[in-house]
Amino acid sequence: MRTLTESAASASHPFSIVEGGGVTSARGFTAAGVHAGFRANPNRLDLALVVADEPCPTAGVFTRNAFAAAPVRRSRRILDGAVEGESYGIARAVVVNSGNANAATGDAGMAAAEEAAHIVADEIGCPADEVIVSSTGVIGVQLPMEPFRTGVPQVAKRLSRAGGEDAAHAIMTTDTVTKQCAVRFSGDGIGYPGCTFTVGGMAKGSGMIMPDMATMIAVITTDIPCKPRDLRAALKRAADASFNRVTVDSDTSTNDMCILMASGAAALHGADPCEPEDDAFAAFEEALSAVCTYLARQMAKDGEGATKLVDVCVGGAATEADALAAARTVANSPLVKTAIAGRDANWGRIAAALGRSGAAFSQEDVSISIMGIPVCEGGLALAFDEDEALARFEDPEIRIQVDLGVGQAQATVWTCDLTHDYITINGDYRT
Amino acid sequence: MRTLTESAASASHPFSIVEGGGVTSARGFTAAGVHAGFRANPNRLDLALVVADEPCPTAGVFTRNAFAAAPVRRSRRILDGAVEGESYGIARAVVVNSGNANAATGDAGMAAAEEAAHIVADEIGCPADEVIVSSTGVIGVQLPMEPFRTGVPQVAKRLSRAGGEDAAHAIMTTDTVTKQCAVRFSGDGIGYPGCTFTVGGMAKGSGMIMPDMATMIAVITTDIPCKPRDLRAALKRAADASFNRVTVDSDTSTNDMCILMASGAAALHGADPCEPEDDAFAAFEEALSAVCTYLARQMAKDGEGATKLVDVCVGGAATEADALAAARTVANSPLVKTAIAGRDANWGRIAAALGRSGAAFSQEDVSISIMGIPVCEGGLALAFDEDEALARFEDPEIRIQVDLGVGQAQATVWTCDLTHDYITINGDYRT
Repeated sequence: MRTLTESAASASHPFSIVEGGGVTSARGFTAAGVHAGFRANPNRLDLALVVADEPCPTAGVFTRNAFAAAPVRRSRRILDGAVEGESYGIARAVVVNSGNANAATGDAGMAAAEEAAHIVADEIGCPADEVIVSSTGVIGVQLPMEPFRTGVPQVAKRLSRAGGEDAAHAIMTTDTVTKQCAVRFSGDGIGYPGCTFTVGGMAKGSGMIMPDMATMIAVITTDIPCKPRDLRAALKRAADASFNRVTVDSDTSTNDMCILMASGAAALHGADPCEPEDDAFAAFEEALSAVCTYLARQMAKDGEGATKLVDVCVGGAATEADALAAARTVANSPLVKTAIAGRDANWGRIAAALGRSGAAFSQEDVSISIMGIPVCEGGLALAFDEDEALARFEDPEIRIQVDLGVGQAQATVWTCDLTHDYITINGDYRT
Repeated sequence: MRTLTESAASASHPFSIVEGGGVTSARGFTAAGVHAGFRANPNRLDLALVVADEPCPTAGVFTRNAFAAAPVRRSRRILDGAVEGESYGIARAVVVNSGNANAATGDAGMAAAEEAAHIVADEIGCPADEVIVSSTGVIGVQLPMEPFRTGVPQVAKRLSRAGGEDAAHAIMTTDTVTKQCAVRFSGDGIGYPGCTFTVGGMAKGSGMIMPDMATMIAVITTDIPCKPRDLRAALKRAADASFNRVTVDSDTSTNDMCILMASGAAALHGADPCEPEDDAFAAFEEALSAVCTYLARQMAKDGEGATKLVDVCVGGAATEADALAAARTVANSPLVKTAIAGRDANWGRIAAALGRSGAAFSQEDVSISIMGIPVCEGGLALAFDEDEALARFEDPEIRIQVDLGVGQAQATVWTCDLTHDYITINGDYRT
């Protein structure tokens, strides 16, 4: 459990939450969202544009799916610095369409992504290689260009500091709510006196119960000055501990993409970029981590058909890898998730999932609690008040805590319950 | 797709299907099933007993789940020969209760399994170490002994060659139908002139959509003479290609157990056990494989809430491990399974699952067909007749065929669709 408020309370460098904040809260960025025609419904926004005032350091983390979509492959290429497969470089804009993933579309799909970048580049006046294209929606259908041709001039005209909200709407697919937030911290005492830095972002992602299609897109902006390569490292660490903890394989769907842009616009003119060993970089990473964690948890909470956000925290593991494997196996178990939907403290299903996770432990040492109620100790059932458990299941956030009793390592994974609505939503998504 | 009839048609040593056959079709075995009181409903049989006329060679394959149930741990111990973790030895009887898994029950659970074995041993007159105990049902609740004390004498009294049907009923949990079959082949020309051998069995397993609780139990009998260690090897090979192909982790739930007993009763008196290099052993393995594959497919077909059996066949892979990983990832994808429930030929979800499976391929080389309709070629959409696809989805067995276009290896995994009924069944299983 780590809400934005909890993160702020435990931060070593204090930060505050920007009410109604999002992708345009950091200085140096504007955004907008319009209906361009990727979707039939004229009331659904489907084209988002985020533009930096100047070309700025940008990093991206991308899906490793072998069916990676054209926009993912193109973005990896134009952000041409890379460490451990994560890219970085310079960019001016991110354009996102929803309704079509431009995945499994071959050479024509690559050409379409390139053309979309050119349309945006011509409109805002920059090289096409500074425009990152991102798409989400149905797989295997060629991306129509007409909505870009008519929509980009419209969306460019509406770019503003207030446009983050519309942009967050335009990237939604089966999401039921927008996912946005921003936090702010002072540069005092960390080498940037008198400056206030902001990290904010937006994300979409709802089919995340077990993501295996065009699921997650996030665009995060900041106004701290930072070099592209260092941004990459910070983004990688933050994404691994947030988006990649929503469920297993959240990093490997066809269109997953998280972009981080740093304008440096909140630093005094001529200030040096912060370096990884600086206190300012540490403060930035803390703020970035809080933003990513908030957005990741919002995705789990808005999972298709979900009624509950579920925190699965496994501690007492021999290694962090073991803790993560155990937490992911529990979080992915349809039997655990249906039990939560049924408000059933059925810890036997949790035990069974732990047992097949590959994590090292002896069943005699395992403890499990659900919503703070100890239900299993030493691998055995504990008597508990079923009415009390049922009452605690009314909470919209369900906590499962496991102690494997082997070591000190721990990891948390976020998921949601599995309900009839998931079946309904996905049983007739395409037709 | 490999029905019993298809297996028989392609067998190199011909075998025939025993109509209404099951665990007592092979000579030397009797069985029965009664209501003993593990379940509240007096109309539900819940105690099965299979007894060999004489102590006989027996092999078992068991779950590797770290929360392995007491009966699994005890059975592994009493079948004390072991190769690669699979056990073999000598046994007289298998007793199975349904309604309680005796998993996560600690020392008391081990004592309960031992006591159940003693009750059976006393009744049929053999050492307790020749009685294999198996349990299926709810996890984390102590196994009551009274149903054994009252039920074992009753079930022993009813043992007969006709009792296989009741035994198959008694091991069911959320299964909607019994799973039984038997096949028969002649010993002529393979070293046992004038003999007719039978392999038959029963299984339970329904929560197999993604098995992570007390799911699968199978008891298979044969009357061919065979040494325990060789039985183990045959059972391991047959289970790997059948039960372990139903879905990923089907070998790792808390109570999974498959027992194979060989009475030798159909051989002439004094005949030698068949050896692994004999033609008779090859014929036996073919028959065993057909029985296991039939039972495995029956489990997928009777998956909780399932309306469709789904065959996922991946070919053109670089290695069999790649083919299996790809097939398993597709077969486990809730998005693929809900699409099938919705009769939607949504191949993009199949592509996305292939892409995150870890199997080596280039998306440009992938072809996919659904129910024989090519829907993707060279990684791109093919136009197809949606009405025709919808019509073919009426078939109770859905075939997904993938060609990765890299090599020659292939693998098939069986699963089922994911429906509202799965949520209903599992949302209130325990309470």
